[in-house]
Amino acid sequence: MITSTSNQQVKNLIQLQKKAKARGEQDVFVVEGIKMYEEAPLDRLVQTFVSESFWRAHGPVFEKSGRPDPVILSDPAFAAAADTRTPQGILCVVRQYHYSLEEVCAPVAGGGPQLLIVLENLQDPGNLGTIIRTAEAAGATGVLLSEGCVDIFNPKVIRSTMGSVYRMPFCYVDRLCDTLRGLRRRGIRFYAAHLAGSVSYDTEDYTQAGGFLIGNESRGLSDEAARAADVCVKIPMCGRAESLNAGVAAAVLMYEAARQRRKREKPIDKVRKTY
Amino acid sequence: MITSTSNQQVKNLIQLQKKAKARGEQDVFVVEGIKMYEEAPLDRLVQTFVSESFWRAHGPVFEKSGRPDPVILSDPAFAAAADTRTPQGILCVVRQYHYSLEEVCAPVAGGGPQLLIVLENLQDPGNLGTIIRTAEAAGATGVLLSEGCVDIFNPKVIRSTMGSVYRMPFCYVDRLCDTLRGLRRRGIRFYAAHLAGSVSYDTEDYTQAGGFLIGNESRGLSDEAARAADVCVKIPMCGRAESLNAGVAAAVLMYEAARQRRKREKPIDKVRKTY
Repeated sequence: MITSTSNQQVKNLIQLQKKAKARGEQDVFVVEGIKMYEEAPLDRLVQTFVSESFWRAHGPVFEKSGRPDPVILSDPAFAAAADTRTPQGILCVVRQYHYSLEEVCAPVAGGGPQLLIVLENLQDPGNLGTIIRTAEAAGATGVLLSEGCVDIFNPKVIRSTMGSVYRMPFCYVDRLCDTLRGLRRRGIRFYAAHLAGSVSYDTEDYTQAGGFLIGNESRGLSDEAARAADVCVKIPMCGRAESLNAGVAAAVLMYEAARQRRKREKPIDKVRKTY
Repeated sequence: MITSTSNQQVKNLIQLQKKAKARGEQDVFVVEGIKMYEEAPLDRLVQTFVSESFWRAHGPVFEKSGRPDPVILSDPAFAAAADTRTPQGILCVVRQYHYSLEEVCAPVAGGGPQLLIVLENLQDPGNLGTIIRTAEAAGATGVLLSEGCVDIFNPKVIRSTMGSVYRMPFCYVDRLCDTLRGLRRRGIRFYAAHLAGSVSYDTEDYTQAGGFLIGNESRGLSDEAARAADVCVKIPMCGRAESLNAGVAAAVLMYEAARQRRKREKPIDKVRKTY
């Protein structure tokens, strides 16, 4: 059992939690909690750490699981390595995902047309994680991020994805507008969420291959990105509300697309999982 | 100018930021930032505090504004009083809002039917603030909160409302299910967002007086609250996503109601503000 917070492995975990650079160099990220551990694909799991208390309570589960034994940390050492204030007592180092633009934007085998989410300079980790979680639930097929977005492997992002980060294809692109124009030539239609949009979002048809552009939390989409889209759509607002939270705007758009796609699918009896 | 963090006014601000009890006893809450200051109704503004730097940059604006002069704090004293890490340099003490259940649930004068949001044991301040912000934008008419919800005057909630807290009627109710049953007798139909909902949310008609029930972030709605609703609706989810963020679920439901209500309103040419 490791008891010292100056142990090399504990110090490395702290670096991985805090520094995008350390995560990039080691090509890994850290996930916390039972749910994130259970959903982590075995072939990506580099190492698991548990607190002494967690091991005492749940040790036998590991022996039955067929997964590698965890490294045990004293409770104070675990608390130092954890990013959460009240850690559940389990965290893992997981290999990073690397998808190509082709993989992120490809039509899904046997599925419907693409539904992409494109994020420009999104800064809030909770927003990014929530958008990835919502994207999976709404049936989006991939997420494109401008280089100016927060690091997707930031522990707050990972936590907010609630496991969707394991399953949602994504990639960072350094020339976002050029990429969008290339994708448009391949038949994907882009809808920019914009306060000055010319049409209400619910008047567009989202049943074909398409994507939504969402901008920075305080500045919104850049003019360049808005121009790279096929159409600017607005989400109508009542009262004196001036804008929506970026995660909320993305959710409203994605679920309108999902709603339209379900209506189309019903006649041909396509089964879609619901809860 | 106040320079000491042990000054009584600074100490009181810190208490008001941290303690719901102190806010309740003094019947006030604290708002931060220029936008929240500008939107604060003059008749609710108890006192304004600015940092020395803010005063040097913007002092003349106050003289023209006709609003009471602010108290000036040294930058370190202001930083101690602020809840944000990088404060804008202005914060105000504002009188709390107290709406009766009648006021929250009344039909809006000259407007359409009620659209209520009912929150049971919502715990995350950011979620609550985002829901209030989205509620105003979607045209909701009031928010009901169970006693177990986070304090709406918590500074993180206030910040996330982006000013909607000044305009959205709300009240805490101590017997939520009894209240819902009473409102149903008055013709308001309640839709519980529930993972085990019997119908998809987009198959219901939300154009009449109605309300959405949203549960706690990790436990969802209690069985009792779900039973107190007219119908449990589910938001279909694809992939392996197991649930949605509470703020996202509320947004999807409220914007579906807004969408349906706009469609109904168009034929009679009702004007609704859009951005």
